[in-house]
Amino acid sequence: MTVKLYHCQGSRSVRPLWTLEEMGLPYELVAMKFPPRFFQENYLKVNPLGTVPFMDDGEAQMTESAGISQYLAEKYGPTDIALGLGDKDYGNYLNWIHRSDATLTFPQTIVLRYTQLEPEERRLKQAADDYTQWFFARLRSVEKGLEGKDYLCANRFTVADICVGYALYLADTLGFKDGFKPNTLAYYERLQARPAFQKAITL
Amino acid sequence: MTVKLYHCQGSRSVRPLWTLEEMGLPYELVAMKFPPRFFQENYLKVNPLGTVPFMDDGEAQMTESAGISQYLAEKYGPTDIALGLGDKDYGNYLNWIHRSDATLTFPQTIVLRYTQLEPEERRLKQAADDYTQWFFARLRSVEKGLEGKDYLCANRFTVADICVGYALYLADTLGFKDGFKPNTLAYYERLQARPAFQKAITL
Repeated sequence: MTVKLYHCQGSRSVRPLWTLEEMGLPYELVAMKFPPRFFQENYLKVNPLGTVPFMDDGEAQMTESAGISQYLAEKYGPTDIALGLGDKDYGNYLNWIHRSDATLTFPQTIVLRYTQLEPEERRLKQAADDYTQWFFARLRSVEKGLEGKDYLCANRFTVADICVGYALYLADTLGFKDGFKPNTLAYYERLQARPAFQKAITL
Repeated sequence: MTVKLYHCQGSRSVRPLWTLEEMGLPYELVAMKFPPRFFQENYLKVNPLGTVPFMDDGEAQMTESAGISQYLAEKYGPTDIALGLGDKDYGNYLNWIHRSDATLTFPQTIVLRYTQLEPEERRLKQAADDYTQWFFARLRSVEKGLEGKDYLCANRFTVADICVGYALYLADTLGFKDGFKPNTLAYYERLQARPAFQKAITL
């Protein structure tokens, strides 16, 4: 079975979509309007949580964007964008993949919620400010992790860069790019130049 | 080099500590008072983010609790608590490990912050209520994932149960246990009965 990916433009499903594009794998894309629980009939039957992405390759059904990206690269490799236990940087690779979502994306979703998605009377400036500050405090790890390096792990582009790169893209859409420090900004520009990234954010 | 784990009682470092205990691995524990950036001199030199856990095994330096647990089981196995690409449930396993932190733990940290950690004048009832509701909506996936099963993956106890189990433990400390549905409650009691869990939350 071909990999089937349920996607909303610009959402976390960009991660697995970007991964599929980098690997040149065939896939079936179900592009939906956000939030899909309102606009895509029966999406709750596909994914009861109503979250995006949802990936089904016949063997696995997954909802976590960083986990799906890791899985696709491992399962449908060999590919240079995956690292394995034999690679010196494997722990670092896993750490970045996990940090990209739990630490670098979630705080931004709180900002998005309380500045844009909630109706005016439910917006919370304090929570948005608190988690903007929290995001930038954690983003220092990216600046430091890139010292003297073009990519986060193993001196090459990997799934870790896809996962962290999406968090930077989301930050850019929230107007946070001006706060990127030099290594982070150059890295983000390096990632943006990749055709697979450009396709993944356009679809 | 022995695995060195920086830990605060009851914090996310319970996940790698529980993993080490389940595997019977030797380790060096640095137990710290929370938050360590105030109470542990030089902790910011060890982990500039100031977050807990921090794990160093000589080859990898990691901060993400679910990622560390996955790494330890993979690197210091073979062990029954790890799944690999050859296992039918591998995608499911990765999905739970990722979901445990990004989806099931982060919302609780917002509740904790705005009901307990912040001074009275900075508490935000609305944000705490919003993310309590958000947590319980996502927790339905655990209830459903346990239908007819004792554990989340491969019919046996794995790192996925450690990672999700910690999210349930945190929920319990926040007073959320009364909201657990039957499968989730029975599962949580099953996990609590494990000596390695009991030791990991006591240290």
